[in-house]
Amino acid sequence: MLNAIAITLREPICTVCSTSDLGECMKGQSQKEDPSRPSKCSLAVDTPDQNPLISTTATPVIMPLTVHHLQVSQSERIVWLCEELGITYELKLYQRSPVLSPPSYLALHPIGAAPVITDGDDVTLAESEAVVEYILNVHGNGGDNFVVKPSAGRKEYAEYLYWLHFVNGTLQPAMGRACSLRLAGVDEDNNQRARVENKLHQALSHLDNRLKQTGAWLAGQKFTVADVMIVFSLTTMRRFMPLDLGMYEGILGYLGRVGGREGYRRAMKKGDPEMDVKEAVKGPPPEMFAALKGK
Amino acid sequence: MLNAIAITLREPICTVCSTSDLGECMKGQSQKEDPSRPSKCSLAVDTPDQNPLISTTATPVIMPLTVHHLQVSQSERIVWLCEELGITYELKLYQRSPVLSPPSYLALHPIGAAPVITDGDDVTLAESEAVVEYILNVHGNGGDNFVVKPSAGRKEYAEYLYWLHFVNGTLQPAMGRACSLRLAGVDEDNNQRARVENKLHQALSHLDNRLKQTGAWLAGQKFTVADVMIVFSLTTMRRFMPLDLGMYEGILGYLGRVGGREGYRRAMKKGDPEMDVKEAVKGPPPEMFAALKGK
Repeated sequence: MLNAIAITLREPICTVCSTSDLGECMKGQSQKEDPSRPSKCSLAVDTPDQNPLISTTATPVIMPLTVHHLQVSQSERIVWLCEELGITYELKLYQRSPVLSPPSYLALHPIGAAPVITDGDDVTLAESEAVVEYILNVHGNGGDNFVVKPSAGRKEYAEYLYWLHFVNGTLQPAMGRACSLRLAGVDEDNNQRARVENKLHQALSHLDNRLKQTGAWLAGQKFTVADVMIVFSLTTMRRFMPLDLGMYEGILGYLGRVGGREGYRRAMKKGDPEMDVKEAVKGPPPEMFAALKGK
Repeated sequence: MLNAIAITLREPICTVCSTSDLGECMKGQSQKEDPSRPSKCSLAVDTPDQNPLISTTATPVIMPLTVHHLQVSQSERIVWLCEELGITYELKLYQRSPVLSPPSYLALHPIGAAPVITDGDDVTLAESEAVVEYILNVHGNGGDNFVVKPSAGRKEYAEYLYWLHFVNGTLQPAMGRACSLRLAGVDEDNNQRARVENKLHQALSHLDNRLKQTGAWLAGQKFTVADVMIVFSLTTMRRFMPLDLGMYEGILGYLGRVGGREGYRRAMKKGDPEMDVKEAVKGPPPEMFAALKGK
């Protein structure tokens, strides 16, 4: 593991300028101003491209559950889930190097993709849906407030399951295919690209209709982990694949509600303090990920 | 809905030659020879490219759970699950027309993709993972014999969850990206294509190592719905995207075990009787889907 720094701090540091004094840092300042930041989360930072810049005399805290968050990635879901649940966890941040995962993140798990969590000595777990289900059932008492169970009735249960699994089953693969074809330089009039872009629009329209229908959250009136799963595709993912959501009014209203949630804002401040969340939940695509600009 | 035929038969018919007398049909003959075929499943056939060829005087049976199986598609998972669980269900078959879903299948659900199930008057559900979870918990008494629960221990539970969600989170998207780039005619030396193909190989190698490690099933010594989810990507999917698995000994051994399961063989005979399952579980890619040949 190259340049891995296992530091547990009682106070967050800024991952942009790497100062440990937030008073000196404009980017990190907002973290101090957030009165709702729970004390349950300790923060560690991995700076793969720099020498260790921080030393601390804070007492190390042994935390069984550690969320390894590759910044600007799908693992933001897990930070968000932990904040919504209000559980005790350690947050460890990793910066992209410059676009892909740094060696220290790749060393965590054979598949080398975010998210990864570790729990005690014997559990290292990847895959968003697996991590969400694990945290709900092992650390979140089943997460009753964030799931819909069969006892709610078949129709409600089916709707929850559908939208929970729509993300990895339909939306994210559609975005992935479109993204690959764009990055490969395939012309817009190529039959395959046209078909894939059409499928993506179909998926977004389907989602848009659903959100207009509920006027609230994905599974209905209750905020659930289906919401935790889907938002990345509509916000942060667009920093890699520009996509204007202006035509999808249902999605835009939904993203406004997401952006208003304290748990989401707290998670993004802790995990990706340099990201402009207000821009990410608007229709025009948010600012391109820095290392991709001009490519 | 065009050409949709809602026929409930007490005896299966052959979807290849459309005879209702299996004694006259070589393809369907094997269905009669299978002594383990449960009587719990009734079969209906939708033939979108043909006029209705079948009439029956069999008494219609009201079945609450109907599996709408688009032949040669991901919905084979659901037929397989029902056969493994031994539950009562109605199987309705739809033929591709010629490659994509026929109008009668598209009419089932807004997203137009397989699988789809209906359950009574108020539930229409798509997405493989959602359908698997729904059937387990609503019709399968929680499917205790096919899942791993937290009570098994954190490590075992985490491994099960990981491999269950690896399919839609990593493997199938990697195959989808590779498939799209190939279909779009992107050169093998294109950077993006090389990266995507490498990611696919990485995912398959990761899976291969896991299967060598367990020597049995994906979650360990117990057959689970993680297996039900993954096999399509390794067998039927290769009829659309030729992929030689010869170098992955762990996967090949696993597919041999899958091909030996009565539930799998029964499901494939009922859902895709024209498919040569013995070929699909070997290393060389199975025969290309007929309508794609020469393309």
